[in-house]
Amino acid sequence: MDRVYLDNNATTLVDPRVVEAMSPFYSQLYGNVNSLHSFGTETHPFMRIAIDRLYAGINARDESDVLLNSCATEGNNTVLKSIYFQDIVKGDKDHIITSQIEHPAVSKTLNFLESLGVRVTYLPVDDRGIITPAALKAAIEPGKTALISIMWANNETGLINPMKDLVEIAQAAGIPFHTDAVQAIGKIPVDVQDIPVDFLTFSAHKFHGPKGVGGLYIREGRTIVPLLHGGEQMGDLRAGTIDTPGLIGMGMAMELAVSHLELEDVQVRKLRDKLEDAILEIPETQVIGDRSLRTPNTILASFRGVEGEAFLWDLNQKGIAASTGSACASESLESNPTFQAIGIDNELAHTGVRFSLSRFTTGEEIEYAADSIKQIVNRLRSISSTI
Amino acid sequence: MDRVYLDNNATTLVDPRVVEAMSPFYSQLYGNVNSLHSFGTETHPFMRIAIDRLYAGINARDESDVLLNSCATEGNNTVLKSIYFQDIVKGDKDHIITSQIEHPAVSKTLNFLESLGVRVTYLPVDDRGIITPAALKAAIEPGKTALISIMWANNETGLINPMKDLVEIAQAAGIPFHTDAVQAIGKIPVDVQDIPVDFLTFSAHKFHGPKGVGGLYIREGRTIVPLLHGGEQMGDLRAGTIDTPGLIGMGMAMELAVSHLELEDVQVRKLRDKLEDAILEIPETQVIGDRSLRTPNTILASFRGVEGEAFLWDLNQKGIAASTGSACASESLESNPTFQAIGIDNELAHTGVRFSLSRFTTGEEIEYAADSIKQIVNRLRSISSTI
Repeated sequence: MDRVYLDNNATTLVDPRVVEAMSPFYSQLYGNVNSLHSFGTETHPFMRIAIDRLYAGINARDESDVLLNSCATEGNNTVLKSIYFQDIVKGDKDHIITSQIEHPAVSKTLNFLESLGVRVTYLPVDDRGIITPAALKAAIEPGKTALISIMWANNETGLINPMKDLVEIAQAAGIPFHTDAVQAIGKIPVDVQDIPVDFLTFSAHKFHGPKGVGGLYIREGRTIVPLLHGGEQMGDLRAGTIDTPGLIGMGMAMELAVSHLELEDVQVRKLRDKLEDAILEIPETQVIGDRSLRTPNTILASFRGVEGEAFLWDLNQKGIAASTGSACASESLESNPTFQAIGIDNELAHTGVRFSLSRFTTGEEIEYAADSIKQIVNRLRSISSTI
Repeated sequence: MDRVYLDNNATTLVDPRVVEAMSPFYSQLYGNVNSLHSFGTETHPFMRIAIDRLYAGINARDESDVLLNSCATEGNNTVLKSIYFQDIVKGDKDHIITSQIEHPAVSKTLNFLESLGVRVTYLPVDDRGIITPAALKAAIEPGKTALISIMWANNETGLINPMKDLVEIAQAAGIPFHTDAVQAIGKIPVDVQDIPVDFLTFSAHKFHGPKGVGGLYIREGRTIVPLLHGGEQMGDLRAGTIDTPGLIGMGMAMELAVSHLELEDVQVRKLRDKLEDAILEIPETQVIGDRSLRTPNTILASFRGVEGEAFLWDLNQKGIAASTGSACASESLESNPTFQAIGIDNELAHTGVRFSLSRFTTGEEIEYAADSIKQIVNRLRSISSTI
């Protein structure tokens, strides 16, 4: 068995069709899309197709904006800091609602805004590991709350928040709603007309597109203070020379991701469930969150008596890539509020390992991973003093 | 004659060696560099080489930082907004010095900061089209000036500011100095030890690297408030998953750019001068700025009685790409302060066209361009009522 990549929530293989679509835009169609000559204008039909694919991928209306940027971290920073300048510095609001389980791109940005005087409410998850509409409703301060920012699906657990209900509450209160949908796009349907969020961020490299390119959806009627001021690109909302290959690649990746959603829901889920069943056959092992509430590709499992880092090391020796949590943060899973909310003790939390599949994951790979996990857990438990 | 690209100050062809260096990092070496497993760690030696190339390219000390980001627009926004939060919101300074000839990535960002109460002095250029040390010295307000931000070389004229003298004045006054070096890197030597700027920004796509990736140099002892908060990448100074192919590509592009500096200074300059001589043979034509003060690749020429846009249209018909100025702004050259300072009247300013060469420009292309320019000027003047 060659190597097995089960860390698709960290980043993904770029689909070869995406690479192929990008390749002419480096040394042939290299013009600046804002140039008026043929080197610029010849890129426009390709750009148009890519942008259409992004709109179609999330079912955005023509009247809304989908800004091309460098990643979801930029999108999240853009929305949160825009609200700060627009409604807090230049308005009379001072409060933002978020959750305890956000990616650092949201939580650290909010920590920064707190240092500037913004009040932030961090909603806890319930015993299923998700944010409840009741908790959101209770946190709203009419006239004071400037924004609600809650992720669509969690990067570590795969747990999906009840977006429709959460957005309904925001709409009823007249408060804009932002969601970090990085872990949702390409895994579950994301439809901004069905679930009318105001701002939505995504990164191409999480759905088999290139790194260094992302998107920010802005609902019609909403606007932002740019995070990047400068040139007139993106309707003056995001300056900087358009990354043509990045845009083309992200467009293709989005189309492929959406066209594989059923495969994700059936085939990836089946492989995930198979791996999960195998993991749960191991005694004193737990998986976080109900299967039906999770993205079809994610397992966050705890193995009592098996230290997460040692487990990863052994997995890596066998060519299997997994993770103890987000690649973006060195914080341990012990501080993960989902564990506490679900009622998992610290010792078990210390042993969490995340496996995240993709449409490129094969049945053979899952069999190999399942066997390897069993062997490793047995070995580590046999040399561990804890069990 | 196939097409001739003379708009290299807008963007450049990606050197095929850069594309080749990037290619393994999409579908083979696609791991997240922050992941602990082999898919992550196997990228590290390549990253190290790329980062070393960036440091070497600008002669940065190991103790300083070179942050990978998405473009110079991001770098410029990062520095200016960082100073705002660090020294203005949380300090007692309120003043920034810049020039009237900055790229919108600086000037529009400063306009935004002005809306928040920051005072900005926009230094004019002298009759040679450059910023003088005396003008800078006179603008400094001790205890109030938080930053000086002056571009190394201008995008429209190619005129190079006297960086060494300007930085000396900043150092003597104890004020940090930022420079947008986008149009300097790969065209003239940039050495941050010889000219000790505190912050320096660049974009890979201006020196035959990929679009969507840039760098921000931060001198040792200086720090910034991140523009992108979030994950712990880049020493907590710029969050977001590392764009591995972008970084690898920019590193290779930097090494190639620096190794071609002599060629730029000799061969590109020779071709530029040849084109410039041919342009100046046309009656009632002017080139902005002394040759010796400009980057070796740039000509901003004015042709009396020839409207710039019409000229570009005809050039484009002949397959030649040039520009009426920055691709990032639709503002006309009439408002360009360099024209006024150099003493060029409005009518002539209205007729400015920029030609910017690169190391890929050939002698044959320049001959074809020179002939075409003459024909076009004759044709347009013959149908124009102005002459």
